[in-house]
Amino acid sequence: MNAVEIISKKRDGQKLSKDEISSFISQYLIEKIPEYQMAALLMAICLNGMDYEETGWLTDVMLNSGKIIKFPEPDFIYVDKHSTGGVGDKVSLILAPWVASCGVKVPMLSGRGLGHTGGTLDKLESIPGFRTNLSLEKFQSAVERVGCVITGQTEEIAPADKRMYALRDVTGSVESIPLICGSILSKKLAAGPRGLVFDVKCGNGAFMKSISDARVLAENLTGVSKSLGRGARALITDMNQPLGKYAGNLLEVIETIEFLRGNYSRDLYEVTLELSIEMLILSRQYIDAGSARNALIEKLKSGKAYDKFAEMVVNQKGDLDRFENKLPMNQCKAVIPIASDTEGYIQGFDTLGIGRLIVDLGGGRKRIEDKIDHLIGIEFHKKIGDLVKSGEIIAMLHTNTKSSAENESNILKRLIKIGREPVEVPRLIKERIY
Amino acid sequence: MNAVEIISKKRDGQKLSKDEISSFISQYLIEKIPEYQMAALLMAICLNGMDYEETGWLTDVMLNSGKIIKFPEPDFIYVDKHSTGGVGDKVSLILAPWVASCGVKVPMLSGRGLGHTGGTLDKLESIPGFRTNLSLEKFQSAVERVGCVITGQTEEIAPADKRMYALRDVTGSVESIPLICGSILSKKLAAGPRGLVFDVKCGNGAFMKSISDARVLAENLTGVSKSLGRGARALITDMNQPLGKYAGNLLEVIETIEFLRGNYSRDLYEVTLELSIEMLILSRQYIDAGSARNALIEKLKSGKAYDKFAEMVVNQKGDLDRFENKLPMNQCKAVIPIASDTEGYIQGFDTLGIGRLIVDLGGGRKRIEDKIDHLIGIEFHKKIGDLVKSGEIIAMLHTNTKSSAENESNILKRLIKIGREPVEVPRLIKERIY
Repeated sequence: MNAVEIISKKRDGQKLSKDEISSFISQYLIEKIPEYQMAALLMAICLNGMDYEETGWLTDVMLNSGKIIKFPEPDFIYVDKHSTGGVGDKVSLILAPWVASCGVKVPMLSGRGLGHTGGTLDKLESIPGFRTNLSLEKFQSAVERVGCVITGQTEEIAPADKRMYALRDVTGSVESIPLICGSILSKKLAAGPRGLVFDVKCGNGAFMKSISDARVLAENLTGVSKSLGRGARALITDMNQPLGKYAGNLLEVIETIEFLRGNYSRDLYEVTLELSIEMLILSRQYIDAGSARNALIEKLKSGKAYDKFAEMVVNQKGDLDRFENKLPMNQCKAVIPIASDTEGYIQGFDTLGIGRLIVDLGGGRKRIEDKIDHLIGIEFHKKIGDLVKSGEIIAMLHTNTKSSAENESNILKRLIKIGREPVEVPRLIKERIY
Repeated sequence: MNAVEIISKKRDGQKLSKDEISSFISQYLIEKIPEYQMAALLMAICLNGMDYEETGWLTDVMLNSGKIIKFPEPDFIYVDKHSTGGVGDKVSLILAPWVASCGVKVPMLSGRGLGHTGGTLDKLESIPGFRTNLSLEKFQSAVERVGCVITGQTEEIAPADKRMYALRDVTGSVESIPLICGSILSKKLAAGPRGLVFDVKCGNGAFMKSISDARVLAENLTGVSKSLGRGARALITDMNQPLGKYAGNLLEVIETIEFLRGNYSRDLYEVTLELSIEMLILSRQYIDAGSARNALIEKLKSGKAYDKFAEMVVNQKGDLDRFENKLPMNQCKAVIPIASDTEGYIQGFDTLGIGRLIVDLGGGRKRIEDKIDHLIGIEFHKKIGDLVKSGEIIAMLHTNTKSSAENESNILKRLIKIGREPVEVPRLIKERIY
């Protein structure tokens, strides 16, 4: 079957076969199928969709376009987590060592900030010396030795995704559930996990604004993973306000360390714990949620989770002492308190706006070549539903110039809505999709 | 607005503005927008459609990418016809001089055979010396002087269509009503007609198999033409059997000459007359269908229509005497009679199969560079509903080798179905869309 026939089949809403998907992509990778034919197929997929089986085949072909790590069987113990991204989402930093401290192996290939959301690698690079560019060999041996690693994807991982994503980006086919699944899963599965837990964020700071969109993505990610023989569970979690106390690269590492030392905010604790429980269950090392929960609580209390974090940092050449000695964190040129003008309840956050403000201040990238100022960020003193008095501090803006700070803090103030009416606190775990 | 935003807008089913369409195509033509972005937009249009106004803007931009002939105002007298193509469809050859003999000007830019359907230019080139590559200047002056011209599109006509069609052909976006409309109309309108009559063929030998598909195309062609200020009328006509007595390039010219000399088959006469009436009405030279019909019948009877045909042929350097002296037409190496094996009624023709058989025998092109054997064709002695006796000749196959003739005539025989039951004759004019 030739390229035009395959494109036409998808254009007409028909299901492609494994051979058709495989031959199209492999021909594309050797330049036998030109960009314009791939662009047409991607748009047809974007508009006519793919079922789990087709998306699984697509993922498999993309995955097999590059190197894939194989861990020894039985490999249930190797489990990873993926988040669709949000503001203040430092869950990976805490969860990887926490879960590893319970005896589960976490081979985590992670990414950088995308749009208004932060990136795990950017956060970790706040730690002096921390290496996020391990070779796949070092990555694999560290998973076995330490139990958890967080590093960047190498060029050898899913090159098909790299080319297809670049093309989607310039041809309007980014917003497609099967293509998003193929892209996420081909990169995640290359690291060799046998199980995957998905944290699908939902709310005004997430890519999925509505619960129905989030549910479709969660169902697709788990359904496709299962069609490829992997264990998979998804939680849909709230992203209508920044998660935890801090948003910003260095600030989120500080929060991670505080968390692992036993000082955490309720929302971050609940989301991280629930995701970690799912990982422990997928690993088949724990018989049920209760025993997984008990193990996690014990490892946190005993300091074993923190020790694992420190071990991971050392293994990746990070200098935690230097990081902590550089604190207090007000080494930032300007730390501006944001006080409430009125008394009332926090009604909500413009979470997308907060993410964008951090990027605008230099705490994230607008273009791939931009440098990040790791010190930039925001400290949140209040959450949705909290009562605030007039003049009470609701947030602290960490920025790098005093000159523009007044303007910036006014922007931030407008992103936090305060009103007379008491409001309901959003449910953190909105749905579980197994 | 940038290219990705325009693609995304159409992907999301929104209406594009005139500026967006115009800037996208003009940027494409100067290579500022690459093929893959155009491929993505074309697929999005293919799947999400365009309304008449958008399609009109698209057509207008494509039209204005090349030269456009302007006739003096008031220009109602300049009227052209377009057929979506069929087997045995020699209507243009008859209609152009017939209508011109009634004082209407027919500036006809025509095409070559496409798929299983014949092409007007290929047919006319059966006449020795006939030129189908007039310059636009010669074309325009001949319209004024002779009243009708049929020639090929030059490179100067709608270059945007040429590039976009080539891309659609390799990216699965040929089958799209707005893109088909844009392609047809941008080429047709470049020749300067003020009115257009569409012959939308419908049936097993047409591109539109169902009446509903044909209706949508007819409504779009007329609707978009009107949105561009042109008069437009469409007839949906039957293509469940070859039109007239002959299919094949030289044979169809013979049938044209016979027709204009007063010897015609009923179906070809009715379709050509009805389309000609519509052209006369659009020209505003005739007050109603009755007076248009009377004029046409008079010009045919008096020989004025034939004279106009001969004048057009001479003007385009064709040698009608040499053409007629080379007859009888059994100069073909093999003219094979096809006799019925049984008694019964003609139930139907596999008209697509017949068109393909003629192409296979060398009477049409499979690739653009193929040479045509003008002598190849089929003579039909029977039509749907006709009673045939066992052994009676139903068709004559004109082919170029005796050796394979038996095989070929068996193929042809299988394409004509004969059965016991009397059948209804298909209605020739199925619908009129004004």
